[in-house]
Amino acid sequence: MTQTTTRVILSKRPEGLPSDDNFTIEKAPVPEPAEGEVVVATKYISLDPAMRGWMRDAPSYVPPVGIGEVMRAGGVGEVIASRHPKFSVGDHVNGLLGVQTVACVPGDGLHAVDPSLAPLSAYLGVLGMPGITAYFGLLEVGALAEGDTVLVSGAAGAVGSIVGQIAKIKGARAVGIAGGPDKCRHLVDELGFDAAIDYKNEDVAARIKATCPDRVNVYFDNVGGEILNAALTRLATGARVVICGAISQYNNLEEVKGPSNYMTLLVRRARMEGFIVFDYAERYGEAFRDMGGWLTTGKLRYRETVVEGIEQFTDAFAKLFSGDKLGKLVLKVSD
Amino acid sequence: MTQTTTRVILSKRPEGLPSDDNFTIEKAPVPEPAEGEVVVATKYISLDPAMRGWMRDAPSYVPPVGIGEVMRAGGVGEVIASRHPKFSVGDHVNGLLGVQTVACVPGDGLHAVDPSLAPLSAYLGVLGMPGITAYFGLLEVGALAEGDTVLVSGAAGAVGSIVGQIAKIKGARAVGIAGGPDKCRHLVDELGFDAAIDYKNEDVAARIKATCPDRVNVYFDNVGGEILNAALTRLATGARVVICGAISQYNNLEEVKGPSNYMTLLVRRARMEGFIVFDYAERYGEAFRDMGGWLTTGKLRYRETVVEGIEQFTDAFAKLFSGDKLGKLVLKVSD
Repeated sequence: MTQTTTRVILSKRPEGLPSDDNFTIEKAPVPEPAEGEVVVATKYISLDPAMRGWMRDAPSYVPPVGIGEVMRAGGVGEVIASRHPKFSVGDHVNGLLGVQTVACVPGDGLHAVDPSLAPLSAYLGVLGMPGITAYFGLLEVGALAEGDTVLVSGAAGAVGSIVGQIAKIKGARAVGIAGGPDKCRHLVDELGFDAAIDYKNEDVAARIKATCPDRVNVYFDNVGGEILNAALTRLATGARVVICGAISQYNNLEEVKGPSNYMTLLVRRARMEGFIVFDYAERYGEAFRDMGGWLTTGKLRYRETVVEGIEQFTDAFAKLFSGDKLGKLVLKVSD
Repeated sequence: MTQTTTRVILSKRPEGLPSDDNFTIEKAPVPEPAEGEVVVATKYISLDPAMRGWMRDAPSYVPPVGIGEVMRAGGVGEVIASRHPKFSVGDHVNGLLGVQTVACVPGDGLHAVDPSLAPLSAYLGVLGMPGITAYFGLLEVGALAEGDTVLVSGAAGAVGSIVGQIAKIKGARAVGIAGGPDKCRHLVDELGFDAAIDYKNEDVAARIKATCPDRVNVYFDNVGGEILNAALTRLATGARVVICGAISQYNNLEEVKGPSNYMTLLVRRARMEGFIVFDYAERYGEAFRDMGGWLTTGKLRYRETVVEGIEQFTDAFAKLFSGDKLGKLVLKVSD
């Protein structure tokens, strides 16, 4: 019996915020798996800021998605056919399934996940790329030390919310920057941040000064733009600025705004460093072991925003940029 | 007998390029040295881009020069009176003497120099702050490795010219960015750089691409602005960007231009790091030993531009920004 997949194709590269004009949704038969391939019924699709970069025809750490190709995305699902020795029908897997309801993909790119240990969607968030991005970004690139003050932007998002919590677990202070009073309350009251800054309603520079009296040892940046610039002015000597993303700039139609205060790196003998979490692939096990333990003991909490239906892809994706979501944003494709 | 000093006082903070309006030149009696102080007859005054920062009323790694105070500057001279046990009349010393012909200063801030080993002015350049800035900036902050491609801006200047030569000594490729064909020829023909880029007459981005086919492992930045931005686009994976200065921005009347291409730090897993050479004070000996050896064996060459007369201070200082000089710029005060 031939399976049918509903898939979202990149039909035109976006300028600015992607809209329905940039994608077509089509139905297509799922091919029979070749040797080494696995057919997966998608349950949840991950919506990540990095996907905006993949839509751009520019050199980066991975090739852009081609026009006419299925939009690239991480996902979790259930194996419904397999010609790969590691996977059997009924297994649950995580990998680059693309924005489609059924995926026929090489098994070598998939990882088995256990739905009895955590909800499937958690493998796209706290136990997935956002979680390990927070983990290695803060601990390795940020070289976190006990007693540090950690400032994180996009703090109510999938990565930022974990950065702040790991900081607390490791004996640092955590201050988060997020949009709106609800998110700020969530950071402090539910996630245990020491303070939160509402960039939509407060003077960010003044609030960083007030909430980080000993200056900032690690600034974990997910947003770029004026918030990065403000954070740079309050770096401590020897500070580390972790460049994880720049969501404020991804849909910019003009030139990206560079951090005009970058010379504080000199005055403060500080460094600004970028990273790609894939470079830590051999050490993912460490992160999953620690994060799993913290989840079990309740030290680490997470929230997610679930949008239902693959045809909602464009609207759901836009929530990453409008901020109209909390924690990890996922698209639910099937039960 | 009371000595008289001619001294340059900061009378008004400059906006943009400093001019004679910002300084007054006055004669004053030299005080009798107190216990621990030394009176020095200045021979050469160092003119450095960092001095522009010291004229600004903004927090930095040292306090600003106050209005009405002698302009801060490094210098070398001869001891003419001493109440410090380490220094005797006739000794030659290096330290923050200020822009004045005779300085009465604490002896603890001075270092003895030997005019029989190198010309006195060399202790302000290759054997002074510019030399050790190049040395620790390239080898420590830049973490130079054999086979690296090193790109340096301000390459015909006091620091940049040494950066490129140390790169060559250590088995790396050196490419310099400088203003005008004469400086570029000097870099390649006299200092042994592999290639030079004339930012005044060439397309910098295109020339970086052409001269650094394996991309850039270390970019040593003295200038900031558009050249920094161009260099960022050609970083190699794991590259180090050493922030030493931003001379293109120091006299800016508008907001500093931040590097809009900073997100290449993420794509290339690269870091951008600032430093202050004073932090390496305990290791200066290493640098002076290596640099002295390279000078003796002719592996390291230097040039200087000498302006005569303390009353020429403002005009001479302006040459740092106009580029109308080669190598280390010094003001000669007396024979």
